Amino acid sequence: MKNLLVGQSGGPTSVINASLAGVIKRGIESRKIGEILGTVNGIEGILNDNIISLDDFTPERIALLKQTPSSYLGSCRKKLPDSEKDEDIYKKIFDTFKKHNVGYFLYIGGNDSMDTVKKLSAYAADKNIDIQVIGVPKTIDNDLFLTDHTPGFGSAAKFIVNSIRQLALDTDVYDMKSVVILEIMGRNAGWLTAAAALANSDKLNPVDIICLPEVTFSPEKFIEKLKNVMKKKSTTIIAVSEGIKGEDERYIAECGDIKRAADDGFAHAALGGVGKTVEKLISDELGIKTRSIELSTLQRCFSLAGSKVDVEEAFAAGSFAIELAEDGKTAVMAGFKRISDKPYAIELAPFDINDVANFEKGIPKDMIAEDGLGVNEKFIAYAKPLIAGELPLIFDEGLIQFEIR
Amino acid sequence: MKNLLVGQSGGPTSVINASLAGVIKRGIESRKIGEILGTVNGIEGILNDNIISLDDFTPERIALLKQTPSSYLGSCRKKLPDSEKDEDIYKKIFDTFKKHNVGYFLYIGGNDSMDTVKKLSAYAADKNIDIQVIGVPKTIDNDLFLTDHTPGFGSAAKFIVNSIRQLALDTDVYDMKSVVILEIMGRNAGWLTAAAALANSDKLNPVDIICLPEVTFSPEKFIEKLKNVMKKKSTTIIAVSEGIKGEDERYIAECGDIKRAADDGFAHAALGGVGKTVEKLISDELGIKTRSIELSTLQRCFSLAGSKVDVEEAFAAGSFAIELAEDGKTAVMAGFKRISDKPYAIELAPFDINDVANFEKGIPKDMIAEDGLGVNEKFIAYAKPLIAGELPLIFDEGLIQFEIR
Repeated sequence: MKNLLVGQSGGPTSVINASLAGVIKRGIESRKIGEILGTVNGIEGILNDNIISLDDFTPERIALLKQTPSSYLGSCRKKLPDSEKDEDIYKKIFDTFKKHNVGYFLYIGGNDSMDTVKKLSAYAADKNIDIQVIGVPKTIDNDLFLTDHTPGFGSAAKFIVNSIRQLALDTDVYDMKSVVILEIMGRNAGWLTAAAALANSDKLNPVDIICLPEVTFSPEKFIEKLKNVMKKKSTTIIAVSEGIKGEDERYIAECGDIKRAADDGFAHAALGGVGKTVEKLISDELGIKTRSIELSTLQRCFSLAGSKVDVEEAFAAGSFAIELAEDGKTAVMAGFKRISDKPYAIELAPFDINDVANFEKGIPKDMIAEDGLGVNEKFIAYAKPLIAGELPLIFDEGLIQFEIR
Repeated sequence: MKNLLVGQSGGPTSVINASLAGVIKRGIESRKIGEILGTVNGIEGILNDNIISLDDFTPERIALLKQTPSSYLGSCRKKLPDSEKDEDIYKKIFDTFKKHNVGYFLYIGGNDSMDTVKKLSAYAADKNIDIQVIGVPKTIDNDLFLTDHTPGFGSAAKFIVNSIRQLALDTDVYDMKSVVILEIMGRNAGWLTAAAALANSDKLNPVDIICLPEVTFSPEKFIEKLKNVMKKKSTTIIAVSEGIKGEDERYIAECGDIKRAADDGFAHAALGGVGKTVEKLISDELGIKTRSIELSTLQRCFSLAGSKVDVEEAFAAGSFAIELAEDGKTAVMAGFKRISDKPYAIELAPFDINDVANFEKGIPKDMIAEDGLGVNEKFIAYAKPLIAGELPLIFDEGLIQFEIR
């Protein structure tokens, strides 16, 4: 029996370890697969022969791993060169595979990691090496092609949504006008920023304006809309993607002072992020008390009150990758097909890695509001099920407990 | 029977409404007290006669209120003038009390609110008006005198502590040296910043340096310690109070570039907070990748995975204030006396408002580490019980549910 090697790559999410837990649990149970091995820091661990056994995971450790954010195995940002340009690195990788009798390599990651899956599976096919290479998706950005959504997105969205709900009450506490700008991750795809719309429900409707990287940012339209909002409300929360750009395709985050930047061709220095830039625009134009908040890296690692749907789907994707391995599949990514929004149902499905790798999926036009400063019901129907449900978490004396390598 | 009026004041916490819930529940049950009334936006609501009934709270609404952060009744930052200087405002307040047949006024808040309790109870005594005025403490800053600790601190501390634990895994994911600076609220008292030390346990010990406002910040000592830390570890998290000051008593947050500031007598412009300033110091001196994160207002309003001890004590403090009202007490604040650290036990106790109002309690010297860049076991023993326990929360389709006015 051949062994299975699993690695994690790219930026952390709060459920990438849930996928690993699915791989380990289902992998240990498999009668077709030998030992379950892990590579430390992704491809780098293969190059350095830093391979560890994952065969000794107890159900207790699996449960802890499921609620541990970031990457248990460590991560890397290494992108493989083409094999024609640097075959040595491929030889080194496949030597390590051979040394550990690896017949299956599973890589949990985002776009760059799927590129690695594509290249390694193509190399194996080309050289007639009997190794199956399978991708497991993860990214809070939700920007992978073909799969309906990506594990990690739902929990990050849920952290943002419930943070907004709490910040809304915080902002509303004094009898005065004020605006909060929330700077949200996602440089090229606005899925996470758009998720802010999910915070609105019933009595609490704090989010009126959403600035997506898919829509060119117009300071005039933005201020016009905000003016109208503030005629009816005393407080509002604005969700702004870190990646919004002006008409000249430059990042607004780099503009500092948008007004002056517009005058002098955006030749201005950065003031420290898009939040501060938009904050300045609002106070200059409307004179309203404005506070910008960066949710920072907490967005990708916050697992308190994560999405049950997301955690369990992440686990299922890992588990499904083992099934694909048992079925002899290679050059595929385990993903999701949406069956229905309401009631929410998905199906696990393999997608051809060549159709997935190296494409970024932004929010389609038909999910964006007509004025470009928000999303519509189609987006809500799509995203709402992904933040549903809560899992019981394991704490000890107030501290959330983790499985640590 | 006289009615009871309750108000909330000062900055939000995640449990000030739990205290209100305690007041409402125990107040409705009381046979000595008539109607339970609330003033909207604290003293301002009394001045504008914006008084609402709270008598119709069902157990379901009480349960929701207990998990709702910020102030259900709204807040204000109004500080009362001395009655000799402006008696009109006192007359107006007591007219509203009379109009609504108020015999008890409960004010939930921090230092300024306790000053209001002190002034109103003194005025009532002076004018022989039969109104009992009682304070209920709340502040994430934990800086009120006499009471062992304040409701709001435990939950804010727990958010910081578990955020650090998650950020530690996020930071540790790549095979490279890096430093995270966490900028924490508390301009004059370092309790919340110190709480970062609670994040360390077992395998996870991310916090090595804590910069408190109680200790003069020395860039040299700080860099020296960080150098030693980074000899042994590849990543660390540094907790920095927004209120740390240099030798000249100026806030470090205002220094921008500490090195240059030191050279030119701190005559430098702000770069945007203490985090960015310390970030620059580290990258200039050590050249290590450093990221500064502001936990922002989430610190005071985050109620996902709050502290059960804190929420229940906040509720108990509100409930106890009703008992004090029934017992004829006035000019007191409901507070806590520590009975024992292990097992943790407190006793509810009334404290003379004159001994509480207008003093700020910083961290005592005997809880601070010898090198001034951390805390010791005495602090840990004191603070650890305050973050313990988790309460089940009410969600709907992934959204945390609130009781909203």
